[in-house]
Amino acid sequence: MEEFEEFEYQPKSVKEIFIEMKNIVELMVDLAYTAILFGDKEIAEEVLDLEERMDLLNYHLMTHAVLAARSPKEAEQITSVLQMANSIEDISNAAGDLAKMVLEGVELHPVITEAIMESEEVIAKIPVSSDSVIVGKTLGELDLATNTGVWIIAVKRGKRWIFAPDKDFKIKPEDILIGRGTHTSVEHLKEIARGIIRVIGDERA
Amino acid sequence: MEEFEEFEYQPKSVKEIFIEMKNIVELMVDLAYTAILFGDKEIAEEVLDLEERMDLLNYHLMTHAVLAARSPKEAEQITSVLQMANSIEDISNAAGDLAKMVLEGVELHPVITEAIMESEEVIAKIPVSSDSVIVGKTLGELDLATNTGVWIIAVKRGKRWIFAPDKDFKIKPEDILIGRGTHTSVEHLKEIARGIIRVIGDERA
Repeated sequence: MEEFEEFEYQPKSVKEIFIEMKNIVELMVDLAYTAILFGDKEIAEEVLDLEERMDLLNYHLMTHAVLAARSPKEAEQITSVLQMANSIEDISNAAGDLAKMVLEGVELHPVITEAIMESEEVIAKIPVSSDSVIVGKTLGELDLATNTGVWIIAVKRGKRWIFAPDKDFKIKPEDILIGRGTHTSVEHLKEIARGIIRVIGDERA
Repeated sequence: MEEFEEFEYQPKSVKEIFIEMKNIVELMVDLAYTAILFGDKEIAEEVLDLEERMDLLNYHLMTHAVLAARSPKEAEQITSVLQMANSIEDISNAAGDLAKMVLEGVELHPVITEAIMESEEVIAKIPVSSDSVIVGKTLGELDLATNTGVWIIAVKRGKRWIFAPDKDFKIKPEDILIGRGTHTSVEHLKEIARGIIRVIGDERA
């Protein structure tokens, strides 16, 4: 939890906190669906850890906000930030509730996984073969979200999960990517990851 | 509200209702951010309309569910569907709250639009020039989500909004697409829409 410590001593700006909250809540919803889809308690735990981080961020946001208001106009503007942060936290709590279903070992109805797999944005496991063109490249170089339409939410490497891997994350053979995208884009990336398709996007990558 | 009438007479399956709820809630969150970003009350109204539709869908889901349970195991499974639907409705309500900020004319802090524009997934207006390669093509043919990484949430045509345009929607010059994606993918699609880049994806489209 080193990151938390740093955060305590070097408070970020309202803007930085707010951007982090928006990014985290999107990751939380994706991970909550992923945890349900694969019945994976470790992913569900990560969602709850992120929910705690959201609480802390929202607390810091409020502290900053209260200090910042100097005029009625500023007060109204700052209230709008707090309102939006509360909505974001509501979404975060909903994602937490989804994750808890997995942790509590609730018997899930098949319709749940079907809905996650058949809705417009789907989530899928994408196993990487040693002869795929993405092996040895970083997520920053590949920019899969732009070039294939698939967002990488997490990666399973051996027994370890890496959540929200950053641009310096280098793909290795046998990695299992967890991606979110359209049916077509996910199927396309699966073929790239299996080494069948050897071109990514229009090779701007 | 023709669609609602139809819905009343031809009840869908639990699965269909559930998939629709998942699709709608994602659209609602995207549209709520869009309404805030552009201070657009019409988009905010659409979010509230969708929130009403969600309520109706959730009601139908519950009615179906109550009828379906025949054994304790089934009851547990069906409860899991209701639990998940409730979380989805919590997210829908949060999106509704965001939209209400716009409708109530709250003075928004600049940090809010900055967060929407600087987070990982951004929302942008993409104006279409008459000489763009996407003109005259349907969204189904283009599959922009796969080929450029940009999801089309809505389109402004003249004074009219089209929300969640379907695969048969044909792009016309002067349309303004509202897209969600990475910074890079949105900038790339802007250049395609302006007629500067004349190739889409790897031309699988």
